[in-house]
Amino acid sequence: MARTIGVIGIGHVGVTTSFNIVTKGLADTLVMIDTKPGWAEAERLDLQDSLGGLNTYTRIVANDYSLLRDADVVIFSGGDISVIKDGDRNSEIKTTKAAIDDAAPKLTAAGFHGVLIDISNPCDVAVTYWQEKLDLHRNQIIGTGTALDTYRMRRAVAEAMNVNVADVRGFNLGEHGESQFTAWSTVRVNNEPVKASPDFKEKDLAEAARLGGWQIFNAKHYTNFGIATIACEMALAVMSDAGRIFPCSSYDPQYGVSIGHPTMIGRAGVISNPPMHLTGDEVNQYAHSADTIKENLAKLHALD
Amino acid sequence: MARTIGVIGIGHVGVTTSFNIVTKGLADTLVMIDTKPGWAEAERLDLQDSLGGLNTYTRIVANDYSLLRDADVVIFSGGDISVIKDGDRNSEIKTTKAAIDDAAPKLTAAGFHGVLIDISNPCDVAVTYWQEKLDLHRNQIIGTGTALDTYRMRRAVAEAMNVNVADVRGFNLGEHGESQFTAWSTVRVNNEPVKASPDFKEKDLAEAARLGGWQIFNAKHYTNFGIATIACEMALAVMSDAGRIFPCSSYDPQYGVSIGHPTMIGRAGVISNPPMHLTGDEVNQYAHSADTIKENLAKLHALD
Amino acid sequence: MARTIGVIGIGHVGVTTSFNIVTKGLADTLVMIDTKPGWAEAERLDLQDSLGGLNTYTRIVANDYSLLRDADVVIFSGGDISVIKDGDRNSEIKTTKAAIDDAAPKLTAAGFHGVLIDISNPCDVAVTYWQEKLDLHRNQIIGTGTALDTYRMRRAVAEAMNVNVADVRGFNLGEHGESQFTAWSTVRVNNEPVKASPDFKEKDLAEAARLGGWQIFNAKHYTNFGIATIACEMALAVMSDAGRIFPCSSYDPQYGVSIGHPTMIGRAGVISNPPMHLTGDEVNQYAHSADTIKENLAKLHALD
Amino acid sequence: MARTIGVIGIGHVGVTTSFNIVTKGLADTLVMIDTKPGWAEAERLDLQDSLGGLNTYTRIVANDYSLLRDADVVIFSGGDISVIKDGDRNSEIKTTKAAIDDAAPKLTAAGFHGVLIDISNPCDVAVTYWQEKLDLHRNQIIGTGTALDTYRMRRAVAEAMNVNVADVRGFNLGEHGESQFTAWSTVRVNNEPVKASPDFKEKDLAEAARLGGWQIFNAKHYTNFGIATIACEMALAVMSDAGRIFPCSSYDPQYGVSIGHPTMIGRAGVISNPPMHLTGDEVNQYAHSADTIKENLAKLHALD
Repeated sequence: MARTIGVIGIGHVGVTTSFNIVTKGLADTLVMIDTKPGWAEAERLDLQDSLGGLNTYTRIVANDYSLLRDADVVIFSGGDISVIKDGDRNSEIKTTKAAIDDAAPKLTAAGFHGVLIDISNPCDVAVTYWQEKLDLHRNQIIGTGTALDTYRMRRAVAEAMNVNVADVRGFNLGEHGESQFTAWSTVRVNNEPVKASPDFKEKDLAEAARLGGWQIFNAKHYTNFGIATIACEMALAVMSDAGRIFPCSSYDPQYGVSIGHPTMIGRAGVISNPPMHLTGDEVNQYAHSADTIKENLAKLHALD
Repeated sequence: MARTIGVIGIGHVGVTTSFNIVTKGLADTLVMIDTKPGWAEAERLDLQDSLGGLNTYTRIVANDYSLLRDADVVIFSGGDISVIKDGDRNSEIKTTKAAIDDAAPKLTAAGFHGVLIDISNPCDVAVTYWQEKLDLHRNQIIGTGTALDTYRMRRAVAEAMNVNVADVRGFNLGEHGESQFTAWSTVRVNNEPVKASPDFKEKDLAEAARLGGWQIFNAKHYTNFGIATIACEMALAVMSDAGRIFPCSSYDPQYGVSIGHPTMIGRAGVISNPPMHLTGDEVNQYAHSADTIKENLAKLHALD
Repeated sequence: MARTIGVIGIGHVGVTTSFNIVTKGLADTLVMIDTKPGWAEAERLDLQDSLGGLNTYTRIVANDYSLLRDADVVIFSGGDISVIKDGDRNSEIKTTKAAIDDAAPKLTAAGFHGVLIDISNPCDVAVTYWQEKLDLHRNQIIGTGTALDTYRMRRAVAEAMNVNVADVRGFNLGEHGESQFTAWSTVRVNNEPVKASPDFKEKDLAEAARLGGWQIFNAKHYTNFGIATIACEMALAVMSDAGRIFPCSSYDPQYGVSIGHPTMIGRAGVISNPPMHLTGDEVNQYAHSADTIKENLAKLHALD
Repeated sequence: MARTIGVIGIGHVGVTTSFNIVTKGLADTLVMIDTKPGWAEAERLDLQDSLGGLNTYTRIVANDYSLLRDADVVIFSGGDISVIKDGDRNSEIKTTKAAIDDAAPKLTAAGFHGVLIDISNPCDVAVTYWQEKLDLHRNQIIGTGTALDTYRMRRAVAEAMNVNVADVRGFNLGEHGESQFTAWSTVRVNNEPVKASPDFKEKDLAEAARLGGWQIFNAKHYTNFGIATIACEMALAVMSDAGRIFPCSSYDPQYGVSIGHPTMIGRAGVISNPPMHLTGDEVNQYAHSADTIKENLAKLHALD
């Protein structure tokens, strides 16, 4: 009965996600929550000033957790990206943990029982921590994870090989952090394996894909458009029970941790994780990435 | 033959406008221009990371004026809003003038002959200055002007009277600045004159409408979502030769200045300015606002 | 929790409405129901062939009433337009009644408790009959009614006066049938009363507005695009609790019948009917139209 | 400078394509052409009745070839599908040829120099005939071809294997007719080869994919939603110079005929045809399909 989305943490990412939701008419009710006094309300007003130019309508509400009881999706973009130092997303561990510690009991108290999509970093660690904090099925908690790295890889490959990004497939996997990697064995351009292309230069492409985020970050000190688009796609996949595959962060029982790998998303959150057929080297990179996540998870737990 | 939009000045407003253009598929080519080194390129990359989630395609190019030769529309959001002091948009006169002085000869050199939509403030003064600097017909140069104030008034009225913003009509007029005013005689709610409603409290509504922008500004130090939506609506009206009415800034021969008043927009820019039937008091406010614009225009000219 | 729309009666109107729902991503689940064997299933397949080109997803199901238990909206386009003779929508009384008699108990059995939007003709009579047959609040049952006539009037006025249809406001009222009329006192062009315009030729415009539907009907033997667009707008207004005004068919207690007049639509169906200020002549036309609906309702009841 | 699309032949497919163009705001000007007196005008009116519910604007014009001088794309859906007998699309050779003979000189006289997308059947034969009749580069003339069969295959695979259609890739190739085939070696589900899946039952899937169109056709006597969606996607790819791959009909120099195979589409029409790596059996099927097209082309030429 109608669509409700919550966005918790109205920084650059949260508000761009909110704008995308409103301007595309994705939700019937949008609840924007931020701990900074007056902030969610100011952004609510700015977003509402755009309603006059749309032919959809979204009820926008600021800072009311109680409306999240029936939310289909809550997107979590809390924390404080400004603490990132030296190009390491893990500097955010402390602020993200604090933001989750603040939001989780409020979500529980509200009776939220939908799907939580975490954007905040370190994403995979945050997903696991959310799974610990909320009394929901593990499948109801996912993170954008390497879906963003994947979009960046596709963009980099598309630019380098002069094709449309829609015709580049395949995945970046692992930690949404420095240990993420492109599983080149999965990447196809125009439906052919990219590795078979005479134009394929793995080192250059890997570099372009990996550096994409930092190139944006170094100028803007945040990135918001790619991630907001992905978060909305994932939210829509949940609401419409689409069963679409995203290389996002979800629990991998083999490694005992939430990590970026192909995940079929629908109403229940994770529907399934289709099997991957990686090369030996890719498996090693994935395992290394899982270890990195575990180490960071330990750092987070050590904060208690 | 296809749609090209240029956005000059990629601050918060320019980039949100660009995101809206890309995510809604409004342009076939989007040219993003900024004087800050590396900036337009970083935003271009971030926007391109969203292409993987869209089913439209926009070629995004950074800093290439030559592509504006065939642009349908150039949206100008240059200048530096951070100079605003004491709630006065006119503090931007100097930085906006400098940005226009930089961009205008480059647009001329590129052979641009489409419609320029100015967002930069002080908007009405900037529109006039653009008309002086570019060798285009005056009708090809317009500004968002009081279209934004109008949307804010409609939002405020809709919230106060518990109706949908789509059912609030009427205009804010004059300078896009402190002297703008709501022409309440034009405002209708559910097709009835708002002044006839027992719920109409002019002072409260006027205050809510006038303060809307500042409330957002005081928290964020800029406003971007409402204005980006309006700029895109106006660009679309130009490209599709829609002949739609916007209360935006265009030349008013009676007052000899560009000022916010109902303007029919199409391929040629201004198609016509439908006659207004204001009350005597509203006419006085409009005249006062025109005077204010002229004073500020004199300040701008004095900078030479 | 997510959006479900049912469409009952998959003729030209029903299927075009369904296409619009799917292609704009308005519903998460779309249930298409038709009594003709194999028909809804064939249309479902054709619609699903379009999913590959969209970036939204709609689950499309054929002929399953049980899914309507949680439907936000059911759009009813049953009946058989081919029986229309001599330009009189009332020839459809018999076939529409039969279609409602078939569908109503099935909807009740399914436990449907959302909002029903009737498109089938004679629309106002059908709305009243639905109110009799379903155990729902009268406010939950509305019809597109003169919303379509209104769109046609606006289109005719826009074409005649060379303005954009978005800048024509006002209503056609009464029976969605031959006795409907344009309430010219409500019509505004560019926010000014149309009657004050030197270009206003009531007779010509009224004729153009009235004949619009028949001109299309005489060629195609049905009309589908305008009505499908309106039905979707109304469904969206319900789902998003928009509180928007449509001149659609809803109950008018003063006349004791459902009839086309301004109706604020939201989650509960009819939220309210804002007061109209018509001229004496318009009031008479409205009363006459109400009488016509009552006569036709009597004809429908006489069929039992 | 703005987007113009022409649609020639306003039957079920042409008008649904037109509706999609208008309702999604894909064109600034839409020119609808039909030889049947009054027909294009009636459909134009019906489409215009939907403008009141959109926030985009399209100028819709009936039967004016002269406006096609600057058209970006002309979609040809002329001919008469009702002549199809015994499930053979080639029955349309005569009526399609006559429709092309009528339209081609008018397009030439208008000075059309954009991209022509043929929908009419037999599609591959019609594409070749268009290439003979128009004084344009062969790359400017393409047909939807097996793009539609491909969407049907993807839908059938998605339904059978319980995945989202967005996660099924690969192509149907050859004649858009009975000799078309699914190149299963190209088909991937969730990025894995479909043939490696334990759930893959080639015979069943091939049958479901092949029969899709006829199942719809047998009920409706035409199919329109899938094909209209594809035609619009292809038109958009041309206008935005997207360089996207469609398995549509374009010239294959190796076989000397236009035939459904992967084609990169952009502003110039065909940008390139990426190499295919088919199995020996698939190559044979493709060659057989090319022969079939040649035979039908000979039949068409024999009509002169």
